[in-house]
Formats: sequence, C-alpha cells, structure tokens
Amino acid sequence: MRMVDLIAKKRDGQLLENSEIEAFVRNYTAERIPDYQASAFAMAIYFQGMNEQESATLTKAMAASGDQLDLSRIDGTKVDKHSTGGVGDKTTFILSPIVAAAGVPVAKLSGRGLGHTGGTIDKLESFPNFRTELDQDAFIELVNKHKMAIAGQSGNLTPADKKLYALRDVTATVNAMPLIASSIMSKKIAAGSDAIVLDVKVGSGAFMNDLPAAKELAQTMVNIGNELDRRTVAVISDMDQPLGSMVGNALEVKEVIDVLRGGGPDDIRRLSVRLAAHMLVLGGKAENVEAGEALANTLIQDGRALNVFRKFIANQGSDPSLVDHPERIAQAEHTVMVNTSEPGYVTGIEATKIGQAASMLGAGRMTKEDTIDHAVGVELKAKVGDRVEKGDPLVVLHANQDETTEVEALINESYSIGAQKPDERPLIFTEMV
Amino acid sequence: MRMVDLIAKKRDGQLLENSEIEAFVRNYTAERIPDYQASAFAMAIYFQGMNEQESATLTKAMAASGDQLDLSRIDGTKVDKHSTGGVGDKTTFILSPIVAAAGVPVAKLSGRGLGHTGGTIDKLESFPNFRTELDQDAFIELVNKHKMAIAGQSGNLTPADKKLYALRDVTATVNAMPLIASSIMSKKIAAGSDAIVLDVKVGSGAFMNDLPAAKELAQTMVNIGNELDRRTVAVISDMDQPLGSMVGNALEVKEVIDVLRGGGPDDIRRLSVRLAAHMLVLGGKAENVEAGEALANTLIQDGRALNVFRKFIANQGSDPSLVDHPERIAQAEHTVMVNTSEPGYVTGIEATKIGQAASMLGAGRMTKEDTIDHAVGVELKAKVGDRVEKGDPLVVLHANQDETTEVEALINESYSIGAQKPDERPLIFTEMV
Repeated sequence: MRMVDLIAKKRDGQLLENSEIEAFVRNYTAERIPDYQASAFAMAIYFQGMNEQESATLTKAMAASGDQLDLSRIDGTKVDKHSTGGVGDKTTFILSPIVAAAGVPVAKLSGRGLGHTGGTIDKLESFPNFRTELDQDAFIELVNKHKMAIAGQSGNLTPADKKLYALRDVTATVNAMPLIASSIMSKKIAAGSDAIVLDVKVGSGAFMNDLPAAKELAQTMVNIGNELDRRTVAVISDMDQPLGSMVGNALEVKEVIDVLRGGGPDDIRRLSVRLAAHMLVLGGKAENVEAGEALANTLIQDGRALNVFRKFIANQGSDPSLVDHPERIAQAEHTVMVNTSEPGYVTGIEATKIGQAASMLGAGRMTKEDTIDHAVGVELKAKVGDRVEKGDPLVVLHANQDETTEVEALINESYSIGAQKPDERPLIFTEMV
Repeated sequence: MRMVDLIAKKRDGQLLENSEIEAFVRNYTAERIPDYQASAFAMAIYFQGMNEQESATLTKAMAASGDQLDLSRIDGTKVDKHSTGGVGDKTTFILSPIVAAAGVPVAKLSGRGLGHTGGTIDKLESFPNFRTELDQDAFIELVNKHKMAIAGQSGNLTPADKKLYALRDVTATVNAMPLIASSIMSKKIAAGSDAIVLDVKVGSGAFMNDLPAAKELAQTMVNIGNELDRRTVAVISDMDQPLGSMVGNALEVKEVIDVLRGGGPDDIRRLSVRLAAHMLVLGGKAENVEAGEALANTLIQDGRALNVFRKFIANQGSDPSLVDHPERIAQAEHTVMVNTSEPGYVTGIEATKIGQAASMLGAGRMTKEDTIDHAVGVELKAKVGDRVEKGDPLVVLHANQDETTEVEALINESYSIGAQKPDERPLIFTEMV
C-alpha cells in the first residue's frame, strides 16, 4: 500500500491493519517515508483517532524500531513507573528505594532532558561523582544484587518515536491522544519492564489541563499496556501547584532524603507511597494497594528504604554519608526571601511559572548545551490553602546570582492570594487498575 | 506568528487572518516553510474548512505568488471559461470562436497537461505547425485584431499553487474543497480575466462524483470569484459518460469542426452553446442566457463562428483550409470496430475507462516525456440510452498499432448493457449565476 492511500484511509476514518501501521513505522524510521507524509498522517490521526488495537500496534512497532532492553536476567517482576511530568516531581527517588527494599527490582533508564529543572540524572548528579554510565552487565548485576540501579539512556531506543515526536512538535500534532500514549508506552516497552505504573498529572502545570483529558490519556495507556501483556495501572494526580516544597536539583534530592527519613511535605510523601504501593502490588509483594501502602510506610519508618538509597548512592560512585548529611550537598550562595505584600489565603500557585523561576536561577536547561547549577532553585514556604500575613515569606530563592529582581517578580505573578480559603483539591483524582 | 501556531489555529477551527494566510503563501513559495508543515496545515484545512474570506484570500495570495497577466490593453470584457475536466470535453474550441464572433475577446492561456488525452495545446497541434509560443505583445495584438488567441503558458504562473498541489497530491489532501477551489481560481485570476464561467463536471468520470459535492465546489468558486471582484458563474454538467462522440486529439478537433458547421453530437453542442451564452452575458453581448443561446446558435448557423476559427488557425501558423477538409487532419492507419455481444440498451459508459483506452492507443501522456499520437483515439458509436442489437458497434478504435486486444477488452468493460432503457440523466444539472 502506498503511504498516500494509508493517509487517505485514516483521514476517512477507517481502521488501519496491523501490517499497515508496522509498515509505516518501519519505512518512516528508515527514511523511506518523507516527513510531509508523516505529518499529514499525524494530523489525520489527530482528527480521526485510533482504536485500542491500532494504538497498541503503533506502540509495539515504535518500541521495536530500535534497541530493546533485555531484562530477563533480572530476577522478579520488573515494575517501571512513568510520570507525565510536572514541577517538583521527585517521586522516582522516593518510591524506587521503597519498592527495592521490598524486593521489587528497580532497573531504571533515565535521561537528562530539557525543561524547568533537570531530568532524573541531573538531579542524581547533585551527588558528586555519581555515575550513570553503566554497561548492561554491570547494570543487571547491580539490580540483581541491590535491587536498584539507574542508568543513563544509551543506544538507540525507539528511534521511530524520536523522529515522529520531533515532527509532531513542529506540526501541531503533539496533542493527539493515541500519539501521546503510544509515544510514552513505546519507551516503557522498549525499556523492558514487565509492569508499569503511570502517574498522569492534571492541572495548570501539567500537559493535561483538565480531568477528562487526563482520564482519556490514562485509559488509552492502560489499554495499550494490557493489550501488549504488560500489567499497567494509572494514577491521576494533581499538578495545579508544584509537588512538595522544593524545585531544583539538589533541593529536590534533599527533600527526597527528608521523606525517606519519615518527614517531608505531605503531598510528595502521600503520592510516593501510593505509587510505591501500586508497584508493590504489581511486583507481587502486596495483596492490594492498602497493604502496599502499609508496607511502604513500614519500609520508610524502619529505615530500610533509606538504607537502599544510601547503598544505591555508594554503588554508583558517590558518597553515601551525604544521605545523612544533606547539608553538605550543593548549597547556593544566597537565599532571598520573597514575601507577600497582602494578607490572605494562597488560592493558587502557577507551577509552570515556579519552574520557570527555578530555570532562570540556573536549575534547568533550555538547550542541550546549557550546564545546570545543581544548588539553585525555589523553596516554597506557602502552598495552596495556607494562610499568610503581610510580609510572610512565599518562597525562598536559592541563588548563585546577586540579581534576582526578575525572578522575584515571576514568583509574585505565580502566587494568587485571596480572602477566601480555597476548596481543597484532591491530590489523587482517580486510579485505573 | 510561527507556522506551528498557524497550523494549530486552523486545527482548532479558528478563522485565519488575511495576513496569516498571505504570510503562509509567501513563505511557502519562498521555501521558508517546509513541506511537512504545509501538509499538516492542508490536512487541518481538510477537516476544518475555510470560510469565503479565507478562501478568497488564499486564492488571491496564490495568484499573486508569481507572474500575473496584464490584459488591460485588450479592449472589452475578458471572459474566461474553466472546466474541471472530463473525457471528450472539447467545448473550449467551440465556444471560443462563438463568443469571439460576437466581439467578446478570448485571450486564453493553456497547458499541455498529463492525462487520458492531451491538453488544449496538444489538441490544437493536430493542426500542423500550429504555434502557441506567442510573446505577450503578439498575443495581445492578435486578440485585439481577431478577438481570439490561445497561447501556451509560459513564465511563472501561480508557483504557490503548483508547489502546494504537488504536495497535496501525495498527502491525501487533494479533496479539500477550499483548496480545490482556490487552486483553480488562483490560476484564472493570475491569467487576467475579468469574468469567469465555470463548468463543474459531476459523475463517475469527473473529479466530483456526486451532485452535492459538485454544487459545493461550484458555490465555493463562485463565492471566491465574486469576493475578488470577478463576475463568476458556474454550470454543473454531466460527466457520467464521455462528452460527444470523439476522444482523442485530432478526432476531437474534427468533432469541433462538425459542431461549428452546425452538426455534431447533441450533448457537446448544447453544452458549448450554453457555456457560450453565459460568456456572452458576462461579456455584455446578450441580455440574458436565453438571448445568449439564440445569438450563439445564429453565429454557428451563419458561419461566423467557423470563420473566426478558420482565421484563428491561420493566425497561429497552420493551414486554415484543413477546417474545410478535416479528412486531411491526422488520420490513424487502422480502424477497429468493437461490437456488442449482447443486445439491449446502453445503461452506462465509464468515462475514465474510455479515456484510458484512448491513452493506451497513444492519445495521452502519462509522463511529461511521452509524445502524443494526434491521430488515435476512440469514437463512440453508441451512447447511454441507445438501443443496440447483437453485433452492433459500440465504438470504433482509431489506432496506429496492430494489437488492440487489451484496448477492446477495456471498451467492453466500460459499457454496461441492460434490458431496460435507463432514465435520462440531465446534461446540465444546475447553474449558479
């Protein structure tokens, strides 16, 4: 079948055969289909959608378009977690040592990524000399021995998705539900996990702004996972304000340690425990999510999760004593208080603006060439629902620069203060199991 | 505005500003917008459409993307005719001398084109030494003096349309109504006419298969024309079977001469007269279409139209005596009768298959490099509604090849014979004035 006919078929709302979708992915990856046909095809999918089977076939074909990790030499059920992304989200570093402590292997591939703050690896590099360049054998051995390792993505994973995503980004076809879902799931499938917990964010600071869209994305991904024999569950969680109090690489690592020590902000702790609980269920270590939560809390309280984290830091080349002395992890030179000029209740905090503020301080990377300042970032002193009086701090900026006027202005813009205490917004909206 | 935002705007069903459409055409023509964005944009237009103003702006911008003919030195109202294309359509050669004889100037630019039979210029080249390479001064002088000239398209007319059409052809975005309409109308606007008569074909042999689609296209084009201050009317005519009896270059020219002599098949004569009548009205030579028809018929009957045609052939370098001796115009070596094996009524003739048969004999061009055999083609001996007995001829093939088995098979496939005389299908379905 010619590509133009395939585009017309989808444009007219007909279902595509598996072989047609596979041929598209194969030929597009091999540059035998030009971008101008792929973009018209993506726009047709935007309008006509794809059913479960089409989406699953696309996912599988994209996962198979490059290298696929073989984790079969790792004992136990490999459970991966994926978040659709948000500001202050450091759950990975909390739930990984928890589930590893329970015996669920965590073999995670991560990237650096562009954005307001660094990616998973950038955050880990707040620990001096932390190494993520592990060859496959070393990676598998670490996981088998210590149940947890995080390696940088190397090799040629899902080249079809990379190519298609870059094209969608410049052709207004990013927001096509089956394409978003298959893009995420193809990477998870290629990364070799047996089961997947998805944290789909919803709110002003998330890719999905409203609950129906978030639910649709979650359901589409759960369907794809199940269709491809990966047990998949999804949690839809709030991203209307930043998660936790810390935004910035070393700051977030310190908050992770707080939580693993039994403290830390309520929202980040609750969400991490809930996601860990789902992973424990999928990994066969808990009967149900409630039992999983109880187990996760125990593993925090008795210090076993923190032990795993300490060992993980040591295994990958850094100094484990930093876990017990987080004050020795990168500290910024200055702290600047941003105070409220009016009293009232915090009614909203625009997460993307907080992220932007952290980025302006040097916590993020706008181009691949930028370097990250691990020490800097934003510490939230008031969150939505909190009462503040005139002059009370909203945030503390951790900065290595003298001039922070613009950043302060952005912080003031991001906070809304009102006379009425706002209704409480749930942390977790729904779950799809 | 970035192109990706323009795509998103149309994708979301919003109206585009004139300046946005103009910027798209300008930058796409200049290759500052890549094909992969233009194709996604075209697909968004396919689904979301364009309103009258958007379509008119697109048309005008495409007309302005290259050279535009200045016909202001030609006296009188220049009325152009455009057909959306069909098999056996030779109305241009009949109506042009008619309206020229009435004093309406015909200054026509034509192409060769790919397809089942040659384009306008290929057909004219059935007259030996016929020249269509006229410089602008010679062309204008001919029209002013003799009211009729046809020149080959030279220069850089509507490059934006050429580029976009080629892209639409391979991205399943040809069938977007505003894009079809603006493509056609941009060429007419750039060709400098003051008023336009559109012959929109409908039926199995036409680009538009059903009446609602043909009406929509016609209405869209009429709106665009009026929006751009060109009086535009549309006739929706039948293309469910070939028009007239002759399909092939010299064969069609001979049929033209038959009609101009007062004979010829009923359908081609009636349609030509009707289209000419509309042109006479727009050109200010008739009060209304009925008066226009009467005038057109007079101009045929008294030989004035044929005189103009004879002069036109002479002016452009060929032998006018051929008009009075059409038997001396290119004749094929062989004629092959294709007879019916069953008696009954002709209930259908697939126009595209007849066109394909003519092409297989050498009348058309599949690639730009192919040469055309002017002599060959298909002569229809029975049309829809005719009664045929076993052994009666359906068509006569005019061939310069000995082997015609495949062509005969195709002719047999194209004819449907049934026991019932079919209901008569109108030649002209509706008109939009």
